[in-house]
Amino acid sequence: MELTVYLAGQIHDNWREEIAQKAKVKNLPLQFVAPQTDHDRSDNIGEEILGIQPSAYYKDNAASDINNFRTQVLMQKADIVIALFSEKYKQWNTAMDVSTAIALNKPTIIIRPESLIHPLKELSNKANVTVETVDQAIEVIRYIFD
Amino acid sequence: MELTVYLAGQIHDNWREEIAQKAKVKNLPLQFVAPQTDHDRSDNIGEEILGIQPSAYYKDNAASDINNFRTQVLMQKADIVIALFSEKYKQWNTAMDVSTAIALNKPTIIIRPESLIHPLKELSNKANVTVETVDQAIEVIRYIFD
Amino acid sequence: MELTVYLAGQIHDNWREEIAQKAKVKNLPLQFVAPQTDHDRSDNIGEEILGIQPSAYYKDNAASDINNFRTQVLMQKADIVIALFSEKYKQWNTAMDVSTAIALNKPTIIIRPESLIHPLKELSNKANVTVETVDQAIEVIRYIFD
Amino acid sequence: MELTVYLAGQIHDNWREEIAQKAKVKNLPLQFVAPQTDHDRSDNIGEEILGIQPSAYYKDNAASDINNFRTQVLMQKADIVIALFSEKYKQWNTAMDVSTAIALNKPTIIIRPESLIHPLKELSNKANVTVETVDQAIEVIRYIFD
Amino acid sequence: MELTVYLAGQIHDNWREEIAQKAKVKNLPLQFVAPQTDHDRSDNIGEEILGIQPSAYYKDNAASDINNFRTQVLMQKADIVIALFSEKYKQWNTAMDVSTAIALNKPTIIIRPESLIHPLKELSNKANVTVETVDQAIEVIRYIFD
Amino acid sequence: MELTVYLAGQIHDNWREEIAQKAKVKNLPLQFVAPQTDHDRSDNIGEEILGIQPSAYYKDNAASDINNFRTQVLMQKADIVIALFSEKYKQWNTAMDVSTAIALNKPTIIIRPESLIHPLKELSNKANVTVETVDQAIEVIRYIFD
Amino acid sequence: MELTVYLAGQIHDNWREEIAQKAKVKNLPLQFVAPQTDHDRSDNIGEEILGIQPSAYYKDNAASDINNFRTQVLMQKADIVIALFSEKYKQWNTAMDVSTAIALNKPTIIIRPESLIHPLKELSNKANVTVETVDQAIEVIRYIFD
Amino acid sequence: MELTVYLAGQIHDNWREEIAQKAKVKNLPLQFVAPQTDHDRSDNIGEEILGIQPSAYYKDNAASDINNFRTQVLMQKADIVIALFSEKYKQWNTAMDVSTAIALNKPTIIIRPESLIHPLKELSNKANVTVETVDQAIEVIRYIFD
Repeated sequence: MELTVYLAGQIHDNWREEIAQKAKVKNLPLQFVAPQTDHDRSDNIGEEILGIQPSAYYKDNAASDINNFRTQVLMQKADIVIALFSEKYKQWNTAMDVSTAIALNKPTIIIRPESLIHPLKELSNKANVTVETVDQAIEVIRYIFD
Repeated sequence: MELTVYLAGQIHDNWREEIAQKAKVKNLPLQFVAPQTDHDRSDNIGEEILGIQPSAYYKDNAASDINNFRTQVLMQKADIVIALFSEKYKQWNTAMDVSTAIALNKPTIIIRPESLIHPLKELSNKANVTVETVDQAIEVIRYIFD
Repeated sequence: MELTVYLAGQIHDNWREEIAQKAKVKNLPLQFVAPQTDHDRSDNIGEEILGIQPSAYYKDNAASDINNFRTQVLMQKADIVIALFSEKYKQWNTAMDVSTAIALNKPTIIIRPESLIHPLKELSNKANVTVETVDQAIEVIRYIFD
Repeated sequence: MELTVYLAGQIHDNWREEIAQKAKVKNLPLQFVAPQTDHDRSDNIGEEILGIQPSAYYKDNAASDINNFRTQVLMQKADIVIALFSEKYKQWNTAMDVSTAIALNKPTIIIRPESLIHPLKELSNKANVTVETVDQAIEVIRYIFD
Repeated sequence: MELTVYLAGQIHDNWREEIAQKAKVKNLPLQFVAPQTDHDRSDNIGEEILGIQPSAYYKDNAASDINNFRTQVLMQKADIVIALFSEKYKQWNTAMDVSTAIALNKPTIIIRPESLIHPLKELSNKANVTVETVDQAIEVIRYIFD
Repeated sequence: MELTVYLAGQIHDNWREEIAQKAKVKNLPLQFVAPQTDHDRSDNIGEEILGIQPSAYYKDNAASDINNFRTQVLMQKADIVIALFSEKYKQWNTAMDVSTAIALNKPTIIIRPESLIHPLKELSNKANVTVETVDQAIEVIRYIFD
Repeated sequence: MELTVYLAGQIHDNWREEIAQKAKVKNLPLQFVAPQTDHDRSDNIGEEILGIQPSAYYKDNAASDINNFRTQVLMQKADIVIALFSEKYKQWNTAMDVSTAIALNKPTIIIRPESLIHPLKELSNKANVTVETVDQAIEVIRYIFD
Repeated sequence: MELTVYLAGQIHDNWREEIAQKAKVKNLPLQFVAPQTDHDRSDNIGEEILGIQPSAYYKDNAASDINNFRTQVLMQKADIVIALFSEKYKQWNTAMDVSTAIALNKPTIIIRPESLIHPLKELSNKANVTVETVDQAIEVIRYIFD
């Protein structure tokens, strides 16, 4: 039984590769999908496909159409959603993705540092499991196969 | 991860073959499904299967049963819906298909010429992405796999 | 038992007032809701609230947000949807509204002239009832109370 | 037709009273509901009802149960959700509430300053309407009754 | 707490009036709705509103549109569905109505004579309660208020 | 694209084998599932598994549990439902199965003789397509693959 | 805004009256509904309406039909579900009711003594809030109105 | 057609291995999934992954997050749910799992000893089939393939 895992969250470091690598080492039958992790690509995709927009606002408008399209296609294929929050970013997309996943009845894991316990308390309360490290998230998924 | 794409819209030129050809060139793992594209076949299918009807109205009635049956079967299999509008046609079926897809939470792309921006503005607003060319639609889907 | 009826369709004549007047004469316990019927207001509402936009495209974009918001609020309150099509207009919004209503399991009536039988055949097939006149639509609703 | 409006978002100024006041001046038939706006009360409600918890983490845990209970009860009563974002706060609860509302098919309005266009672009894209001021949000709702 | 009860089933005797009368005697706060019980009216309603049809088949076609419209409007208002089967009739509409009600999660009661136990066994199995008399059905509903 | 077809309806002749045979001749990629077609087996399955019941009523009760279990498992796997009605039987199970399929948004085909047009008119109106012969039903499905 | 509260759980003491009384003292706008709290009535209702059954098993069978009918009608009217567990009873009905409520997206409160923390841990985890006393449950609901 | 079966219920003997073994002997195309059956592992999984908790209550809290996550992932993959009850245990998780399965429209079988007929009567009433032995449950599933 192979499971598909959507990896929501910040795109500023290589935590997705780390998860994929660790899952491989543990021989977990997982396929990973994710939003666009090249930040510039994600910001520019609207103008890249639709052409130059009249201002930064409309450039964002065009990019968000296509980023949301990608997320909707891939999240519908997911059996599990993992969302990682970090201290430095607003990450409203991450909160949006995990809330959407919960509303769609997808099992969800939040990864966040101890310092974010308070601002994320209501979202953690709705997710299935909240952990602090990538390794713990992997352990939670591995438990399914034990 | 192969995705199934339903191609709604006018059946008066070969835009579906064009999309399929371009997807193949780009090695995108897509399977395409569509309504009946032989216009006469689509109009006559009711009488072809059920026999001669008492008037044009009842002929249309019988054909629409079977065309809607086909669309319902194939759209339920689709991960993505692309709908193409052209200037010359009423295309209420296209508006119906894309609205149904949106209500079923299927990710949707509308292709329409610049001249149709105004009459399609509310429908575009509900779809995920609106573009002007077949090439742009292909690029939006390709972005999922980047 | 009062019922709420959403009146989708063209906004170029006073068919909504006609329906409301006829329902009143027959003492039917109906409340009517509808999209914005002042065409200019509907086209300008985006700029009216959000300010001048950079081009006609963005003006349409802004207006459609608010028109769709209105429709979504009111259609969710509706027990019945009536959609009127006329020969002169594209009326993709009407096809969108009736398709959305059907997907939401709202009972629907289409009113269309005989000349539109063919292009509307698949949409008529999905609606509950298709008639040619406002009086017939009123009769269909009156039948609920008989 | 009275409508119930859930007011999600920051609880650090009196924007909810401002909206209620302005709706009253315009005679809009609206009833407003909201999360707990007394910040200390919201943080302490877990311990207030369940007793002292072993640490800040468990205090948050207990509070979030009851805050989410309140939100779920009141949002299910809402016909419309307005979510206000401000520059200073993380507001993941606001992103969670508006995402949940969208997933439940509730019509939604986001209010956010121009400076937040970029980080909120994907969430704005999913909401019905995004505006910059409380007055604009009121105008969007007033449009329903015109 | 007033409850609305949809009374599906044969229209060849006055069992609906009997139920309404008995509910009134017991002071149960029930409102009853039902399909058209005038059999001729029900058969002729298509031609009555839409005009003469080319054959009996098309007359039935037109009538069924409007009968199903009525049922859909009223069943959506119902809190409870009672379906009565009798020996003499095919009553596929009754089986359709009760199956639809079950699929919509409406609590359902079947009334049928002992002689129909065998052919109705699977349908009875899906309904909440099966009884043999109108009085028993009233008792089942009265139990809600005890 | 292989499709699974649930064959509801009477179990007194070999129409299911006929459909399967004709689909094979036409090379249609179809997999067929069905209720128990051995009538005695279907009536006795409750006592076969659960032991002797105190009367015919309880025997039917026990059998219907298991027959409905089977139908629910298999219908959830189906992409299409075909329901065949014949003149001689009550076939309330068939009406139940096709109504359930329609409520679950499964595309449906009814096969019934001309003599049953009138009693089945409302059920036909809700199904996608109604035909008179097994060959016509096969043609409707073949049309999906053209 | 009046809320309806379904009170699931054991029927061996008067905790429901206690809740109703306390809600009244605090002027909370609540309407309470519940299963049959007369234990004998609940056990005998099947035979009371349907007549003597062949054994205790069939008596239970008949009673459960009618008890589940009552619960389904009343829970669908509820905005909130409170479920009380006590040490002495199996209370599988209570676990069933609260699980059904959660699956229907009803906000839920569990009341249970400290001694039941362990066996109820997974159910508590799915409910919104778990408390130990009736007074705490009332406080959680009062918080909605603060 | 392979089916996936979720085996809910007590984890104190090897009934799951027994079912799997018997299914294999009968060549039934079944894949089995289940909750964690190592009782200590299930109780300790929270502390195993998240570290030592401040008390038994919080240890249970942490374990239940992860056990419910596992159940949600695996039950969503299941075509059928079997739930086994025994006399000695409270088994509220089993009642929760089967109720959730029923609410999700999963076909369900309950296995329970005769002594539990009375306390499980309402839950049995909602499940598809109730039997007394593992062998009977296997027979019910085998009937699908006959």
